[in-house]
Amino acid sequence: MKTYRIAVIAGDGIGPDVLAEGIKILETVARMDGTFSFEFTHFPWGCEYYLKEGRMMPEDGMDILKQFDAIYLGAVGFPGVPDHISLRELLLVIRKGFDEYVNVRPVKLLKGAPCPLANVKREDIDMVVIRENSEGEYSGEGEWLNKGTPEEVVHQTGVFTRKGCERIMRYAFDLARKEGKSVTSVSKANALNYSMVFWDQIFHEISKEYPEVETHEYLVDAAACHFVRDPGRFQVVVTSNLFGDILTDLGAAIAGGMGLAAGANLNPERKYPSMFEPIHGSAPDIAGTGAANPMASIWSASQMLDFFGYENYGKLVIDAIEDVLVEKKHLSPELGGNAKTNEVGDAVQEKVAARMQHR
Amino acid sequence: MKTYRIAVIAGDGIGPDVLAEGIKILETVARMDGTFSFEFTHFPWGCEYYLKEGRMMPEDGMDILKQFDAIYLGAVGFPGVPDHISLRELLLVIRKGFDEYVNVRPVKLLKGAPCPLANVKREDIDMVVIRENSEGEYSGEGEWLNKGTPEEVVHQTGVFTRKGCERIMRYAFDLARKEGKSVTSVSKANALNYSMVFWDQIFHEISKEYPEVETHEYLVDAAACHFVRDPGRFQVVVTSNLFGDILTDLGAAIAGGMGLAAGANLNPERKYPSMFEPIHGSAPDIAGTGAANPMASIWSASQMLDFFGYENYGKLVIDAIEDVLVEKKHLSPELGGNAKTNEVGDAVQEKVAARMQHR
Ligand SMILES: CC(C)[C@H](C(=O)O)[C@@H](O)C(=O)O
Ligand SMILES: CC(C)[C@H](C(=O)O)[C@@H](O)C(=O)O
Repeated sequence: MKTYRIAVIAGDGIGPDVLAEGIKILETVARMDGTFSFEFTHFPWGCEYYLKEGRMMPEDGMDILKQFDAIYLGAVGFPGVPDHISLRELLLVIRKGFDEYVNVRPVKLLKGAPCPLANVKREDIDMVVIRENSEGEYSGEGEWLNKGTPEEVVHQTGVFTRKGCERIMRYAFDLARKEGKSVTSVSKANALNYSMVFWDQIFHEISKEYPEVETHEYLVDAAACHFVRDPGRFQVVVTSNLFGDILTDLGAAIAGGMGLAAGANLNPERKYPSMFEPIHGSAPDIAGTGAANPMASIWSASQMLDFFGYENYGKLVIDAIEDVLVEKKHLSPELGGNAKTNEVGDAVQEKVAARMQHR
Repeated sequence: MKTYRIAVIAGDGIGPDVLAEGIKILETVARMDGTFSFEFTHFPWGCEYYLKEGRMMPEDGMDILKQFDAIYLGAVGFPGVPDHISLRELLLVIRKGFDEYVNVRPVKLLKGAPCPLANVKREDIDMVVIRENSEGEYSGEGEWLNKGTPEEVVHQTGVFTRKGCERIMRYAFDLARKEGKSVTSVSKANALNYSMVFWDQIFHEISKEYPEVETHEYLVDAAACHFVRDPGRFQVVVTSNLFGDILTDLGAAIAGGMGLAAGANLNPERKYPSMFEPIHGSAPDIAGTGAANPMASIWSASQMLDFFGYENYGKLVIDAIEDVLVEKKHLSPELGGNAKTNEVGDAVQEKVAARMQHR
């Protein structure tokens, strides 16, 4: 029997609350399938760890993680630890260190999920954002000059490599070709005269390798506008690290809220473990209260199933989430219900079990 | 009689269509007031000029413009001229060259304007974005290395100065204090470890100078989400050049569309002319057809009136736009009507005249 070894970094705030439910679902799927299993190893890394140890994870943290088949991450960030430490020294280190250069973020409005847009058909919100996840604006390069003087000036440098741009675009095009979809590149060459001119140029080059795939190009400002006014234009969206960050939170806003926004950080070559995490933050104010919606975390777990090759189960889990949304009996407060985090998880688990039985 | 000398750069596409209507309104206001007038000087700069002359404006273009009291700009950009040339060599040169470091962009849902958000009250969409307009991500600094090789790498450097951050924040705080509003800073320190850590630090410093002003801070991704889910949180928003660009297009999306989105590029010290322009692009496909909505351009004209000290008239013009929106008889196609650009302008003009008569 195949066993998948998963490193669990529940992290801060509601991280542990929501991950527990995702784990429940993964275990249910494996148990009912019977041919594979999961082994979860929990690491207490995050802001609490930082406050005790002065670091977000141990010095050999990456070596430890490297031995796992995947990482399942809850949320990072807590008052008292500056965000640029908590995130840059854990989440971003893993994304970059394990070359998880593809960030797959579905923006799909499930049946039963609330949509804030009045004039948009549910089917029109159905895209996936392929975000560059290893370089670009997030490279961390910069300098801080004349500190503390009136001439203080700070540089932040985005680093875009040919290799980095090519591989994320090829990933997007491969996906689009497989699914018969269009690819939309989002950039900003009219203002960012180096990085985005380069991005556009490479997009044109790569698109020639895929003559059968329809392409579109938007400026990031226009894309943000159309996410709200006409999201049906977008199918596979490929964009930079920062633009992907902004557009996927906006995507969450139109597709049911942060409680439904999932993400996979993939190293497609499988040289290093990939990481699966809900997009939402750690929401310390509601941690432990049961108010957190575990659906994003469960959806991320379904992306893990996809990545391990169980795409049928990945889809089944999303269908089970949709069942619960449509039924409306076990919804989190943010979706207008009063179910606790674990009750939502139980409800999804029940639907998963039912669907697996009737396969 | 005071005469205001305005340099008109109608630019490309629908630029001339919409500016003509704004000029109509400015002339009406001045004529009926009787104590001041406008003198408009038209400059045929833009992409057509570029295709003939190889540059977007003449070499002494900035010297010419410097002599005017203000610049009124339509839209820039046309197929055949790369955006990073057309915009960077005209619009961005003026913004930067004239130290128009404040970009004031109202995001206000007027009565009668359509809103794509189902669960938001009209009054909740009423903010102004104060965008840093002279530096930051738009500084144009960068390098392009190993061109044409597999090791090709491109750097784009944002440049944030203490002076630049302080002055835009003070502008926002002064405005908020005057109007009894809160200030929200939008940044992204958890990922942009130099520029946005610096931004946040200066925001904390400046906010101490204004103890009576309530402050909030959002990450740009979260801000984008809340623009859609809960825009009522925002009153005066201060943010960087790039984030302001993205958030104001998103703002346009929630506040009636691009046809209603106005902007003022201010040099508050009045050392150089300020520039007023609708936010929308040149939309070459509908240029000259009468389909363009001139309301954004008229709204920008109202910002010009504000800047010259006629704030009562500035407000009156916006009220006149609102009259036309509420009446619904003379609306552009994008707002569901079939009025031509000049008919919409005429309708607003009529309302302006009526309101000026009944003062
Ligand atoms: C926490 C933060 C560093 C992160 C990002 O900006 O990538 C988050 O917003 C995300 O979208 O995963
Ligand atoms: C045309 C472009 C350079 C410009 C910008 O990015 O500032 C525009 O989008 C705007 O918002 O005024």
